[in-house]
Amino acid sequence: MPVPASLLDTLHAAFGDSACSTRDAERIAYAYDNSRRNALPDAVVFAQDHAQIEALIHACREHRVPVIARGRGTNTTGATVPVEGGVVVSFERMNRILSIDPDNRFAVVEPGVLNGDLQRALAPHGFFWPPDPTSSPWCSIGGNLACNSAGPRTVKYGSPRENTLGLRAVAGTGESFRCGTYTSKGATGYDLTRLLIGSEGTLALITEATLKLTPKPSSLRTLRATYRDVSSAAHAVARIMAQPVTPCALEFIDDVALKLAHDHGGGDVPLAGAMLMIEVDGEPETLPSAVDAVSLAAHGEGLEELRVAQTAEETQALWSARKALSPAQRTISPNKINEDVVVPVSHLPELVNGIRELSRKHDVLIVTFGHAGNGNLHVNLLPRDDAERERAHACLAEVFALVISLQGTLSGEHGIGLVKREFMPLALEPATLNLMRDVKAAFDPDGILNPGKLLP
Amino acid sequence: MPVPASLLDTLHAAFGDSACSTRDAERIAYAYDNSRRNALPDAVVFAQDHAQIEALIHACREHRVPVIARGRGTNTTGATVPVEGGVVVSFERMNRILSIDPDNRFAVVEPGVLNGDLQRALAPHGFFWPPDPTSSPWCSIGGNLACNSAGPRTVKYGSPRENTLGLRAVAGTGESFRCGTYTSKGATGYDLTRLLIGSEGTLALITEATLKLTPKPSSLRTLRATYRDVSSAAHAVARIMAQPVTPCALEFIDDVALKLAHDHGGGDVPLAGAMLMIEVDGEPETLPSAVDAVSLAAHGEGLEELRVAQTAEETQALWSARKALSPAQRTISPNKINEDVVVPVSHLPELVNGIRELSRKHDVLIVTFGHAGNGNLHVNLLPRDDAERERAHACLAEVFALVISLQGTLSGEHGIGLVKREFMPLALEPATLNLMRDVKAAFDPDGILNPGKLLP
Ligand SMILES: Cc1cc2nc3c(=O)[nH]c(=O)nc-3n(C[C@H](O)[C@H](O)[C@H](O)COP(=O)(O)OP(=O)(O)OC[C@H]3O[C@@H](n4cnc5c(N)ncnc54)[C@H](O)[C@@H]3O)c2cc1C
Ligand SMILES: Cc1cc2nc3c(=O)[nH]c(=O)nc-3n(C[C@H](O)[C@H](O)[C@H](O)COP(=O)(O)OP(=O)(O)OC[C@H]3O[C@@H](n4cnc5c(N)ncnc54)[C@H](O)[C@@H]3O)c2cc1C
Repeated sequence: MPVPASLLDTLHAAFGDSACSTRDAERIAYAYDNSRRNALPDAVVFAQDHAQIEALIHACREHRVPVIARGRGTNTTGATVPVEGGVVVSFERMNRILSIDPDNRFAVVEPGVLNGDLQRALAPHGFFWPPDPTSSPWCSIGGNLACNSAGPRTVKYGSPRENTLGLRAVAGTGESFRCGTYTSKGATGYDLTRLLIGSEGTLALITEATLKLTPKPSSLRTLRATYRDVSSAAHAVARIMAQPVTPCALEFIDDVALKLAHDHGGGDVPLAGAMLMIEVDGEPETLPSAVDAVSLAAHGEGLEELRVAQTAEETQALWSARKALSPAQRTISPNKINEDVVVPVSHLPELVNGIRELSRKHDVLIVTFGHAGNGNLHVNLLPRDDAERERAHACLAEVFALVISLQGTLSGEHGIGLVKREFMPLALEPATLNLMRDVKAAFDPDGILNPGKLLP
Repeated sequence: MPVPASLLDTLHAAFGDSACSTRDAERIAYAYDNSRRNALPDAVVFAQDHAQIEALIHACREHRVPVIARGRGTNTTGATVPVEGGVVVSFERMNRILSIDPDNRFAVVEPGVLNGDLQRALAPHGFFWPPDPTSSPWCSIGGNLACNSAGPRTVKYGSPRENTLGLRAVAGTGESFRCGTYTSKGATGYDLTRLLIGSEGTLALITEATLKLTPKPSSLRTLRATYRDVSSAAHAVARIMAQPVTPCALEFIDDVALKLAHDHGGGDVPLAGAMLMIEVDGEPETLPSAVDAVSLAAHGEGLEELRVAQTAEETQALWSARKALSPAQRTISPNKINEDVVVPVSHLPELVNGIRELSRKHDVLIVTFGHAGNGNLHVNLLPRDDAERERAHACLAEVFALVISLQGTLSGEHGIGLVKREFMPLALEPATLNLMRDVKAAFDPDGILNPGKLLP
């Protein structure tokens, strides 16, 4: 269904000619995201203020035309691919930091602000915003909120749901609203703020966010522990999380990933059965005891070596394996299937062993690594040809079944989007899905916001 | 509208005769809560399992009869008063701790578990559940979740919304569902868990909760700072919150409250212009530097005395003023109006000064104290007779208007219930309220769950 001419006229009037396009160049450029899925939108608009979003949704609702919000398209699930056509609205030009208020520990931002730009602006005030996806330099706050994106620091500091005070948005009805507070607590009605966070642009488009800031600890220490096998490392993770000093990063890397990183330019990368990267932060006087506490917990059955970085260079060197990992995977498989399943921490040993078995059974290379402190592992299937790709897909369904059997869930931070939609009934009961559909209908009765995503 | 006989038959069958009553004794005992509002239910049932709640809601929906969930009735807003009659369902007998899982940092509980009982059960494992209302020994987890109840520790550790992983519940449709995860992060669909938290029994009845646990720091230090006036103390709060060491309690008490506590049995209570109680926690080695950091921030214009408790007895003595406060207020005014407004921390000086003026203008005694680190002040109006009661009500509307003008909101932790419902349009735009009504309709299409509460 092409966009009606009268709608295009309205869009041109609202956005101006330089911010509204139906040319192939723009349509192609905004057809895909990091999922490598692809579908052409009918038009692309570039928002600069709230009123434009209101006008856009009103007009599109009238014509029943889909509206797909887009930050920077770095999501891995096809969440911004306009599978039913319609208008892609990019927030990349709506990127002002409206205020930074260190006294009240909040910042107000437009959704197009890049995560990395925000962190840089906060640093001189001694604060940071905890969500830290690896894509920080290229992803937007709007995308972070819509996906509940997270990173290594989440184990100590939480995800966007724990770090957002309030939002301004436009629902699928075309109505503008504010929700949440400027205060660090509140009990005034239903929590619409958290409902929008993680909703992947299917309920409302976010036009402003009040983010909760955290004081940046002045010091950090990095430890690296290698283990005989993945199971020993997974047990160490559970021990570390069961003691009082919560690390600000607790990353796991399995033997397959270590070997990959080692073979592809990571000469310093240890060839162990598994590795943990552990970071603790705080004020300088508190660090020695924190290092002692996590070291003690890291010790146990199967530990081979524990190193504590003493200098910035040593810290860099310890992280080299993790850094070498992404490029290394790409050299093997341009079609890697990247999942981010999550299980309760004590079930990590069963998860990593189970995945190992599935890798053997389906004869597909799988590397696992990720945010072990949250039980959140990236399970990357690396098929090298079409036959392997087919086997990988079969294997994936069994990975999810394993995760659910271990009290886990489909996604820790990447979300559902297009690619995990079909698996939602594995994770959620029909009644829960029905309630989600009813909530969707309350916000977006005509289903114009990001159709074909999140809900099966 | 009395309860139809066929519904009563169903309830007797589902709950058994000893857990289902229409006698006056039970009806009167479950007619009121800590708000001192009052309305008779038609029947009272005592739940012991999930299936009973499902049967109850199905049956009541069929007959369009209200269902009012009740924990221990300690809420201050009339949230459990059955203003339209119907069936009160008490969760007091559904009070088992189903599991405590320190490795995964969660506990699974039934809603009738008392907050204090849970904390006691967690202590041997070295964990706690952060929400700590003063009513902890007498209030239920179900009530805590439904009100998003909080306490002094919230400034550092968050409210129920930051400390709950998942829920089991029955919606107003009669449908059972689970939401959330057993993991410390997740991005699998809409966040129904947080939507239920703070919804005051109007969307669904909670039958099981998976609570996120936090390791209990082994040490605590208590400081008491007195100031020349409320304004200096309020400025100190903002300074303390703008530096990196977040205290685990930062309580404010104004001069009127100090004098009250002093005159009513608190000989040790300092007669200052205002007082802050500050606590820092952590492992023992970290405390001296934490005490230094908050002490430095507490210093400034108007500080009169700063004491650090060295022993358990000294800590007790420092808290004596706060402890003496509640009984003291009761001796003055049995009809105190107890509000818990909240503003961004840096607006506290304007708030306390503004309230002072309103107290003079309306000639009503007001004491303010509370969780200043969150900007959450208890504003207690203490009318002594009918004339003062009338003036107090007029004054209250102006207090709320002041709070909203300072970017604040109506409630930090007590919720809305019956008594603050009329003020909701002050805090929330019509569009936001409409969306909340649509969400309500999605969960409870016939409006049987706790009618007359939360939404105006
Ligand atoms: C190299 C790389 C590393 C990554 N590392 C991580 C990681 O460590 N952790 C992690 O969690 N993710 C990671 N990601 C995934 C991705 O970066 C995150 O999901 C990110 O939050 C997406 O932001 P974006 O601006 O690109 O959003 P997009 O990809 O443009 O959009 C994502 C979703 O948000 C919606 N959306 C965007 N803006 C709005 C708005 N204003 N209102 C409503 N909805 C909106 C979109 O409709 C879509 O559903 C990585 C990606 C790459 C490419
Ligand atoms: C002395 C005293 C001190 C207090 N101090 C504080 C304080 O410091 N901080 C604070 O926040 N509050 C405080 N309160 C208020 C009160 O204790 C809290 O609101 C508490 O959480 C209520 O718990 P309850 O079990 O008594 O719930 P109730 O009062 O019985 O119910 C409260 C709400 O929860 C709903 N509800 C109860 N159970 C369920 C369920 N299973 N499913 C769905 N909905 C349910 C009810 O319908 C109602 O809307 C205090 C009260 C008193 C009397």
